[in-house]
Amino acid sequence: MKSPLPFLLFLLVLLAPFAAADPLPSWNSGLAKQAILDFVAKVTDPDSKEFVPVPERLAVFDNDGALWPENPMPFQLAFALDELKRRLPDEPAWKDDPMVQAALAGDLPTLLADHYKGLFHIIDLTGSGMTTEEFADRVRAWFANAKHPRFDRPYDQLAYQPMLEVLGFLRANGFTTCIVSGGGADFMRVFAERVYGIPPEQVIGSYTRTVFELRDSGPVLVKTTKDLFIDDKSGKPVAIHQFLGRRPIACFGNSDGDKAMLEYTTINNPHPSFGLIVHHTDADREYAYDSSPKSSGKLVEALADAPKRGWIVVDMKTDWEKIFAP
Amino acid sequence: MKSPLPFLLFLLVLLAPFAAADPLPSWNSGLAKQAILDFVAKVTDPDSKEFVPVPERLAVFDNDGALWPENPMPFQLAFALDELKRRLPDEPAWKDDPMVQAALAGDLPTLLADHYKGLFHIIDLTGSGMTTEEFADRVRAWFANAKHPRFDRPYDQLAYQPMLEVLGFLRANGFTTCIVSGGGADFMRVFAERVYGIPPEQVIGSYTRTVFELRDSGPVLVKTTKDLFIDDKSGKPVAIHQFLGRRPIACFGNSDGDKAMLEYTTINNPHPSFGLIVHHTDADREYAYDSSPKSSGKLVEALADAPKRGWIVVDMKTDWEKIFAP
Repeated sequence: MKSPLPFLLFLLVLLAPFAAADPLPSWNSGLAKQAILDFVAKVTDPDSKEFVPVPERLAVFDNDGALWPENPMPFQLAFALDELKRRLPDEPAWKDDPMVQAALAGDLPTLLADHYKGLFHIIDLTGSGMTTEEFADRVRAWFANAKHPRFDRPYDQLAYQPMLEVLGFLRANGFTTCIVSGGGADFMRVFAERVYGIPPEQVIGSYTRTVFELRDSGPVLVKTTKDLFIDDKSGKPVAIHQFLGRRPIACFGNSDGDKAMLEYTTINNPHPSFGLIVHHTDADREYAYDSSPKSSGKLVEALADAPKRGWIVVDMKTDWEKIFAP
Repeated sequence: MKSPLPFLLFLLVLLAPFAAADPLPSWNSGLAKQAILDFVAKVTDPDSKEFVPVPERLAVFDNDGALWPENPMPFQLAFALDELKRRLPDEPAWKDDPMVQAALAGDLPTLLADHYKGLFHIIDLTGSGMTTEEFADRVRAWFANAKHPRFDRPYDQLAYQPMLEVLGFLRANGFTTCIVSGGGADFMRVFAERVYGIPPEQVIGSYTRTVFELRDSGPVLVKTTKDLFIDDKSGKPVAIHQFLGRRPIACFGNSDGDKAMLEYTTINNPHPSFGLIVHHTDADREYAYDSSPKSSGKLVEALADAPKRGWIVVDMKTDWEKIFAP
């Protein structure tokens, strides 16, 4: 093996700026920013009684509404609707499907009723029957062409800058940062490494079973609609155990769908722990909602529990100096 | 942040011995050893056209029969049988269960018939209805007390020394080493980090769904028998996609249960790839079997395909200088 010295020196150069600069420049001074800095300081201080070894520094993040917007609808739903339109001429059976009609009419309440039943049906229609690689190609093509209706940017340029800084700050301090989201794993893995710096194996989401086939062209995995697992609410701690096998010490969410994972992270954790809720309070720069969201993202129970659980509530309007990268 | 220099220097000291010493001292010289060395050399050489970037250096390992023995029965089955006996006085309903009776009589063929149906039933009985932490405590207690009937050692001291060296050699060269085994994920995660240096999130196995509960004592995950996923045969590439989201470039197995994952790894992979089969040929020092194993581990189809697929077949008797650590 070659000497690792050049690589290690390169690492030193990379890490040097963190020694002095503010690691969270897009956060205004305040309780939320200070709470993040204090938590990271104490669990990384080897002289602290609250020190946590690197392998145990697991942080989990919801995606929609926590790392990027979920308005006017979750971005994966926007992808699915665009796919419906694109493929409709070739799928005559879809014309008699009431959920397809609701989707094409933009009838979001119908799609989101009954625990997002219509939404999952649309996602099934547009996300099964092809190989995982074909699906990833379609998602990539969509990100390259589609734009958010309000912000007029490609969807993958709408990650919250303050949260990107939190991800980087945690990783620079030995944390593993994982997404644990109701979004589809195969959808999120297409952009998560590029946008968030989170590799596929650290992206946990909803999924259905694939089927292995050895074709003339080589092995493929075909996406089906079977055995749907919805990575939301109490499914989140279940998925964390299933995929990661250890309890997080930090959890970042924004809705009642994240409440169980906040509880799993912070209640009676043998390590020091940290919970944070992004509260959407900024109608001017992003959106303002909690109990009555226009799409997903209802935040009532987790917000009510925040004081007794010690969860930090971020007021987007006052805590974030900017929302998106310029 | 403190300067990472002391830590990096410490790393250098740790890594220094690898620069000169044989990384696989328990392997006899031969085609198998040379194939491993050659593969790692070419994918890690930045000047090679076959160079593979670190994040793509994913190696997957079967466990039973590939990293440790699966005779006279898979170790997890030995655990389950001991648990049956230990708990029998408190579980009167078990007395009328034909599979429990087969298990207590040591009737392995009955337990393994019909795709291991009895085995999974016994594993269900002894691995559900308690929290994940309670289960882990029971597994830990078993490893601390039980001994292998032939080798008279604790089961977790029976990892194959040559394979431990492969794991370490790959990791020292930037590989991520994951277990992808039919064994239970919750069972393997108890020992995999200590025995193999493989952390919980890199242990993929069979699993059932857990249920999240917020108890007075804090949050727990309760093990159930629902939604069993068997991580074997074509389930292995399915699980690799589900858990890791990328294709391995190296795969180590020992039975037909690993054939699909060997195919997924090595056929038409855009990266250089490597497949290896441990052939149990050493009745004196370990066991000798392939088409007619005494327990699990049947090896017929994968062995027949090895030449055309370019999979390396390890002859345990001649390729391994020692089997276990002294």
